[in-house]
Amino acid sequence: MDKRFERDYQKLAEGLSGWLAGYVRGAGFTKVVIGISGGVDSAVSAALAVRGLGAENVHGLLLPHEQSDPASESDGRLVCEQLGISCERVEITPYCAPLLEEVPAEEYLRRGNIKARMRMVILFDHSNRLPALVLGTGNKTEILFGYSTLHGDDACALNPLANLYKTEVWELARELGLPEVVIEKSPSADLWAGQTDEDELGISYREADKVLYDMVELRLGEEELIANGHDPARVRHLFDLVRKNAFKQRLPAVPPKG
Amino acid sequence: MDKRFERDYQKLAEGLSGWLAGYVRGAGFTKVVIGISGGVDSAVSAALAVRGLGAENVHGLLLPHEQSDPASESDGRLVCEQLGISCERVEITPYCAPLLEEVPAEEYLRRGNIKARMRMVILFDHSNRLPALVLGTGNKTEILFGYSTLHGDDACALNPLANLYKTEVWELARELGLPEVVIEKSPSADLWAGQTDEDELGISYREADKVLYDMVELRLGEEELIANGHDPARVRHLFDLVRKNAFKQRLPAVPPKG
Repeated sequence: MDKRFERDYQKLAEGLSGWLAGYVRGAGFTKVVIGISGGVDSAVSAALAVRGLGAENVHGLLLPHEQSDPASESDGRLVCEQLGISCERVEITPYCAPLLEEVPAEEYLRRGNIKARMRMVILFDHSNRLPALVLGTGNKTEILFGYSTLHGDDACALNPLANLYKTEVWELARELGLPEVVIEKSPSADLWAGQTDEDELGISYREADKVLYDMVELRLGEEELIANGHDPARVRHLFDLVRKNAFKQRLPAVPPKG
Repeated sequence: MDKRFERDYQKLAEGLSGWLAGYVRGAGFTKVVIGISGGVDSAVSAALAVRGLGAENVHGLLLPHEQSDPASESDGRLVCEQLGISCERVEITPYCAPLLEEVPAEEYLRRGNIKARMRMVILFDHSNRLPALVLGTGNKTEILFGYSTLHGDDACALNPLANLYKTEVWELARELGLPEVVIEKSPSADLWAGQTDEDELGISYREADKVLYDMVELRLGEEELIANGHDPARVRHLFDLVRKNAFKQRLPAVPPKG
């Protein structure tokens, strides 16, 4: 593993699950609800919640669409079974259908956003009903890239992964003993057939994380990153992505007071 | 008018519309899209956008549900006509139906949240399609009370009203010459029949604003507010509301770094 990401992952898991439990209880809740996608991020987030709150207080939701990869659902079930958490299936197809009918088939992005936001509507409705806090699953790499749907998969009450690069999420997943098939598969938002994060982003997470780490944790600028041996085109591409998507990490803009 | 809210509203309108135009253009956009509810907040927000960007760059959306008060739509049309902005009608009934079918009729809050979030899904889809930034309409009173649906009507890219108490929004509406019927009506989220903000909040906006102003702008605590002549029960009720809903003004909680 790259030296940047060497750390005590057992201790990290303990710290994050302790933080999570403290936050949930401090907010007056005992439970969390989480969308289980079959990917590594939601698996790790759920596993940390189980460690902090107990499996009986973690409510997993499988939210497949008829166009989703069937492996997403079966991998999601595997995660829930292994963690011993409840696993409710709510197929989003009928809820999305009236909206998707109005959006041309080739408008992948609009269609994907609609699906991601319908999942949010369902998760937050369960949050209200249970009651339970919505547990987030976005890692730091994804957050920096803005690789998420605003008011969609980024919507949550708390997010234990927000400070972990994707590389660290993978390490943590191994440490937590999560299923190999979930750790090994290509990350995908699964909003359309054949979509993979790394294709869309134009770079592998492991490579991106090295640049992002030096950019964000070491606070190196574009020229410094290049001087330190990072590929110039890659550096510029990543700066661009981070800059263009920074708005997703902010609350709405408001006028100055007065 | 209460002395607290005496100010030069003409100058305020100018400042806010200038800020709005600067923000929109600075973000690389020329247009905004806004849900026009027939209420005073969206009317003022749209009017400021017209002043800053020109009517041709403000896209109004009427988003009625079959259970909405018909006056909401007709008042919304009146606002759009007076401002000279485009006015597209998207009835949300068919989009909400599959979700609402699963929620018991007496669960007003859950049903209301679903409607508010479906409006968000549609507004943000238009934002993507046009493209245009989603213009917010929440005033400071509403924000402090958390009287909105998270990832619903509070979702926007920018919000010119965020620092204005409801009392100030009414004054600004008069200054901007908006229709009297819109200014005079009882504020309502119109998520169920007979709903009014002031009934739900248990206090009139004009009375609440005096307490909130002293609480927030003068930074007076509970005991100081009471000593200054505010009703003790009212003060405690408002502090409670503000405290309980503060989470709606924050990004998701994340663990400390390290």
